[in-house]
Amino acid sequence: MSCNYLYRSVSHRLPNFICYTPIAPTILSHKSPFCSSRRRRQSRSFSISAGNSFTWDDVFRVPESPQNDDSALSGFFDKIKLCNRDLEKQCEFMPFVIEDQIIGYVHHGFADFLKPFQNVFIFPQDNTYGSHFGCYCTLHPNLSTPNDRTKAVANVVKSLGELIPGIRNELFPVASAFGEHIFFALERAAAPYFGIKAYGVHMNGYLEKDGQEFLWLGKRSEQKTTYPGMLDHLVAGGLPHDISCGENLIKECEEEAGIPRSISHTAKPVGAVSYVDIEGYRMKRDVLFCYDLKLPGGFIPHNEDGEVESFRLVPVTKVANIIRNTSFFKANCNLVITDFLFRHGHIKPEVFGYLKLLQSLRSGYCS
Amino acid sequence: MSCNYLYRSVSHRLPNFICYTPIAPTILSHKSPFCSSRRRRQSRSFSISAGNSFTWDDVFRVPESPQNDDSALSGFFDKIKLCNRDLEKQCEFMPFVIEDQIIGYVHHGFADFLKPFQNVFIFPQDNTYGSHFGCYCTLHPNLSTPNDRTKAVANVVKSLGELIPGIRNELFPVASAFGEHIFFALERAAAPYFGIKAYGVHMNGYLEKDGQEFLWLGKRSEQKTTYPGMLDHLVAGGLPHDISCGENLIKECEEEAGIPRSISHTAKPVGAVSYVDIEGYRMKRDVLFCYDLKLPGGFIPHNEDGEVESFRLVPVTKVANIIRNTSFFKANCNLVITDFLFRHGHIKPEVFGYLKLLQSLRSGYCS
Repeated sequence: MSCNYLYRSVSHRLPNFICYTPIAPTILSHKSPFCSSRRRRQSRSFSISAGNSFTWDDVFRVPESPQNDDSALSGFFDKIKLCNRDLEKQCEFMPFVIEDQIIGYVHHGFADFLKPFQNVFIFPQDNTYGSHFGCYCTLHPNLSTPNDRTKAVANVVKSLGELIPGIRNELFPVASAFGEHIFFALERAAAPYFGIKAYGVHMNGYLEKDGQEFLWLGKRSEQKTTYPGMLDHLVAGGLPHDISCGENLIKECEEEAGIPRSISHTAKPVGAVSYVDIEGYRMKRDVLFCYDLKLPGGFIPHNEDGEVESFRLVPVTKVANIIRNTSFFKANCNLVITDFLFRHGHIKPEVFGYLKLLQSLRSGYCS
Repeated sequence: MSCNYLYRSVSHRLPNFICYTPIAPTILSHKSPFCSSRRRRQSRSFSISAGNSFTWDDVFRVPESPQNDDSALSGFFDKIKLCNRDLEKQCEFMPFVIEDQIIGYVHHGFADFLKPFQNVFIFPQDNTYGSHFGCYCTLHPNLSTPNDRTKAVANVVKSLGELIPGIRNELFPVASAFGEHIFFALERAAAPYFGIKAYGVHMNGYLEKDGQEFLWLGKRSEQKTTYPGMLDHLVAGGLPHDISCGENLIKECEEEAGIPRSISHTAKPVGAVSYVDIEGYRMKRDVLFCYDLKLPGGFIPHNEDGEVESFRLVPVTKVANIIRNTSFFKANCNLVITDFLFRHGHIKPEVFGYLKLLQSLRSGYCS
């Protein structure tokens, strides 16, 4: 007996994202496709416009917003969209399968570039894995060991040249789910072209003072190749395959914010957020493990690796308004801080859209 | 262009529940269908057996378990199953639709009892809403106002007599999602027969002492008709349609644990859990709004409404072991406390199954 219609209803629980083109950092007007029409309010615009870059002064000038009207969460929904682009294009990808496990997704256009490498990639005509194209991508059966697969795929990636830019010589593990058997390792920059899941650790550093909570925010160096000059929470980093989440976090705490192990070992894992972002041939499937670190009042973070320009301590209510009213934050940091806002009681069930926003923080393949 | 195969992969992210029959409170052996075969460990049994009832002494005798082996989370997965029974039978239900919105699900066997009431319920032959049976359930178009619908459905429920036992004369709102337009109100006991979503507020009361966290647990009165003598967290209650979550929680805090408003108003909303439980004609779709209340060290809860026999303060690590190793807790309390364990860092990403368990806390229609 088939239950397809119920599966469909489950999938409908995910937000129905629309096509979205990322924009330069600016203060946004509010209008969310997540609110039903009768809930929508007039879109608002603000007098501050930061253009392509902004200063801490701009950050602290972000206006207050009404916290309890029906459109209060629309700015948060906008930031979820920013991380989950073009989801309707998932049907342009075919499953990438190893040993009967779906470990990623390959765009049919990108597949055309892989097809000449017949000793590495093969494309069986078989919709066992539900491909819209009646085929899937897999590795040649001669490549039976992780080592063989890693080398063979690395050679193809190298051969593709500028089709996959930004090679970092950093290997990411490839598995069907976190903690599962690793089939091979893949260059980090190539992972989204094969729809491989990537994992990271993200930490909010906070303190309590006079009954109010504050978050330490970083402003990224203008020299960073990704998201230069934008806001970050205190510590974040991708998770390579040779280190645990907890140990990676302690390492990143030291490098990014000068937090010694004596403090960082008290950081608490508090859950995870996830998203799926499609851009051209790339399907970025990210899971971010979230951590909270309660910092002592006297602690001042200092960057050790040149990736952060400066830090500021900001009241959590102000941080919430920055997320809602601007695009100052590096896109995925919005999700991690919104998760913090939920867990610390700053977003309340009385506000329309509470459950939908909570659920959408794990829009991706959280596995 | 269809994206069905991707929808399928989304639905596969939900745990693949197997048929489960609830058992009397006892200490369980460990074996989880969620762990892949290579991850499974030998099932273990313990010498304590509580039978149909148990005392606080039994609770405190629950043995320690290894926290970090590969099967560490299997006891938690068992409790998720306890709340999400017979999910494969969702296909025996048809959508219940009002004004183009799916607001519930009706079992095809139960529908046979509704069909004689042709002025109230109609069953169009149309699979617009994806019904496996090529039909759906809706109300007669003459019933166009909430008041008319409430009265007409109440009369049918009354006519069905013992088919719907346990009438409480308590009305629940019927909407497609929380905070959305209310189509009518329905007797609480009848809600699962129409697959209507129900909402509740559940609160963990905790305190910190010498760097360790403790939870206040309640033991339900042996006179309760549901889950007599079982463990509860500190405060919980269903959400009627005429009160907000926050106000309902304050009311329940007073009635269930004697917590005055001066303390309970500091309780923080921290998210939600959800589940779907099928039993016969009933599809119970629950969403529980979770709250944390940090209590002062000197506070002792006392029950005001006779529903709780007694309270004890229990170290959180012990509570985690009670969940993992016993079925002492009222079923849905396991989910709310497991959510607490995640948010407070007691379950770590290094343990196999972390993301799957986290995701499964919202197995239901969290909307």
